[in-house]
Amino acid sequence: MSGPVGRGAKVRAAVHAATLAELVDKGYAELTVDAVAQRAGVHKTTVYRRWNDRQSLVVDALAEHFAADIPTPDTGALETDLRALARALVDSMAGPVGTAVQAAMHSDAGRLPEIAEARQRIFADRFRRAEPVVSRAIERGELPVGTDPAEVFKALAAPIYYRLLVIAEPVDQTTADLAARIALAAARAGALISPIATRNQTAGRRQ
Amino acid sequence: MSGPVGRGAKVRAAVHAATLAELVDKGYAELTVDAVAQRAGVHKTTVYRRWNDRQSLVVDALAEHFAADIPTPDTGALETDLRALARALVDSMAGPVGTAVQAAMHSDAGRLPEIAEARQRIFADRFRRAEPVVSRAIERGELPVGTDPAEVFKALAAPIYYRLLVIAEPVDQTTADLAARIALAAARAGALISPIATRNQTAGRRQ
Repeated sequence: MSGPVGRGAKVRAAVHAATLAELVDKGYAELTVDAVAQRAGVHKTTVYRRWNDRQSLVVDALAEHFAADIPTPDTGALETDLRALARALVDSMAGPVGTAVQAAMHSDAGRLPEIAEARQRIFADRFRRAEPVVSRAIERGELPVGTDPAEVFKALAAPIYYRLLVIAEPVDQTTADLAARIALAAARAGALISPIATRNQTAGRRQ
Repeated sequence: MSGPVGRGAKVRAAVHAATLAELVDKGYAELTVDAVAQRAGVHKTTVYRRWNDRQSLVVDALAEHFAADIPTPDTGALETDLRALARALVDSMAGPVGTAVQAAMHSDAGRLPEIAEARQRIFADRFRRAEPVVSRAIERGELPVGTDPAEVFKALAAPIYYRLLVIAEPVDQTTADLAARIALAAARAGALISPIATRNQTAGRRQ
């Protein structure tokens, strides 16, 4: 790509990278559009022309970060697919950008409606990307028909987040492999069939 | 019990209850020893005689709250024991005190060394209390020898915390039952045998 579109994409990428770098260095509370623009090597009016404010800038950078972080594996077997997903998730969370992103999501900033809403979209997107892993496993006869891809991804992600955010244990490849084994066993045993998710969503709407 | 010991225990209970109530109403940032004393109906010097400061007061109230919240079930079968544990955990987290406690633990206050340390003790205590559930299941031949009780409790707690803290989904009895099914399937499949935990701890110390 070249011309205005190519330049626009480059500016976007530079501003996103600068936003995440500022998040790493200073946290959300201290992040300013001026500092992001300076770091990205663009004029701050260029930033304000594309993003209305600091919040939409951060939301956009986070969404872009999360859209790229967990590729959908296709190794030919559920066990290795789940392990690849879990390791990608750990890598994404354990690096400096991941740590800053986690801190931003689970801080005062995380309670802003825009960030909370972005978080919902980000997780919905992750659940969608796990879908082929589960549908292929069902086709291969590795999982019961009706296994819910979103529930499989949640069962995989939960042990990793629990260690990182709740009991503050180190998160590494061993954690990823353990999470993959838990999700695999639960899915194989038929514990993650759709009705569970459906009942959950209904209960959610009722509250 | 009567006499000074009984009165001491009553003061302790009243101050703990008042501390949790103040946490619910105002959060940690706004909590003062004066307000706790007033709410408990005792003089503030009585509070200061037993607790050095606001932090140790909150840490003590949280530890007491967590010590009492999850009784060790003994229903005769692993599946129903795990369900009882998961439901007690959900009840503890979803009520007004539980919500305030979660907010206090996962806020700026949660980063204070005293609270972080209390959190470690609280979780270690919970893992210990899950121990008989697992050892009895091993004796009954329901689980492989060497299954790690702490890993079983983590597999049970992770889906509940993940929904509450990460994806902000409602947490209810359906969540508890799903968490129990996940932990049961993982434990039965041998995914929670001790070496995993041992390797995890070694990796943790190396970091």
